[in-house]
Amino acid sequence: MGRMKVLNSPTIRRMPCYLHQLTRLRLEGQSHISTTELAKDTATELIVVRKDIALTGAKGRRRIGYEINELIAKIKDYLGWDEMMSATLLGVGSLGSAILGYDEFALYGLRIESVFDSDPEKIGKVIRSHEVYDIASIKQRLGYSTPDIAIICVPAANAQEVAELLVEVGIKFIWNFSNITLKVPEGVVVQREVIAGGLAMLSVKRKHYKSGDLKNIE
Amino acid sequence: MGRMKVLNSPTIRRMPCYLHQLTRLRLEGQSHISTTELAKDTATELIVVRKDIALTGAKGRRRIGYEINELIAKIKDYLGWDEMMSATLLGVGSLGSAILGYDEFALYGLRIESVFDSDPEKIGKVIRSHEVYDIASIKQRLGYSTPDIAIICVPAANAQEVAELLVEVGIKFIWNFSNITLKVPEGVVVQREVIAGGLAMLSVKRKHYKSGDLKNIE
Repeated sequence: MGRMKVLNSPTIRRMPCYLHQLTRLRLEGQSHISTTELAKDTATELIVVRKDIALTGAKGRRRIGYEINELIAKIKDYLGWDEMMSATLLGVGSLGSAILGYDEFALYGLRIESVFDSDPEKIGKVIRSHEVYDIASIKQRLGYSTPDIAIICVPAANAQEVAELLVEVGIKFIWNFSNITLKVPEGVVVQREVIAGGLAMLSVKRKHYKSGDLKNIE
Repeated sequence: MGRMKVLNSPTIRRMPCYLHQLTRLRLEGQSHISTTELAKDTATELIVVRKDIALTGAKGRRRIGYEINELIAKIKDYLGWDEMMSATLLGVGSLGSAILGYDEFALYGLRIESVFDSDPEKIGKVIRSHEVYDIASIKQRLGYSTPDIAIICVPAANAQEVAELLVEVGIKFIWNFSNITLKVPEGVVVQREVIAGGLAMLSVKRKHYKSGDLKNIE
């Protein structure tokens, strides 16, 4: 089966920033926005914002700009955030807890419905309003109502084993925060989150900066 | 002052995955690797791996592949990870703790040398082998020995204020995990980490998947 590359990842990754800012402005009662203003508010280059927004299909009007409500709807539609996604979270160490505490996910249509861990100290406790279930009970708990996505926050040493349980339960989309490449059957999609990726970006910018290549880096 | 775009962010963000895998193989005693093997091990398309590795300047040999030691050195050089970077971390909530606990940073040349928080419950405590200092003491503590980068993990409401303190102390590179756009003077570089960016990627893949556009998505 062939693999196709159709995703413009930098654009997709920027969308939540726009959404965050637009939602904030809407709360403040603002109804329209120009790409110039959105670029300034999100510290993004104007040409980049214009290209990104064009991809969503939103239409701006000369001198009036974009209707914020419409722009929010278009971005959500572009990202598939126009409908709710249910999720299960595996591993409530510090990273898992941080993710559970990330209030904006609700805004993005993500609902974390269950939380699992294997640590007897955590099982049965309530962490950030979620009761922690024993990972041994995952098939029984999720078997008849499979969440849309799973978020893996367990240590690298346990991640493959957990991924296999998730596949057995019928999960098709995995957001992997563990620092390993998961082996999954064809048809299961893994989004790997590499925290060091951001450090790599910052580091390359610093390298260019020090060598005088760039004065100000996007 | 003009802004220049010279960074290939998807490539840069993938480099830590290669580095992670190569370091692991080296530990296991392997001396050479082909791009085919590296592509498989990191679940990345072969053509992508080939382009990425070519950018580092590493030279492979027909039928033998790349010398792992050389490839690691070339990737580190490409990322500016060939020398140590000192860091200070602001905010030790769950996310800050997770970052403190990320052992691989040492491998990437990042050394977190100081940790600050404003919570009296945390100040003076030792979290993951780091004593937590009062953020009010930041100028006094960092004024004469400015770290290379700062990692902001404080809540969004406090992030701008913390960024201003960092700028006063002379920090030029900020890794921002708070969910806001920081306003900083020209010459200060901010790398914003948008956790929802990965969710956006996964969500778009799911959208394409559901609509039958893609069977298997990179």
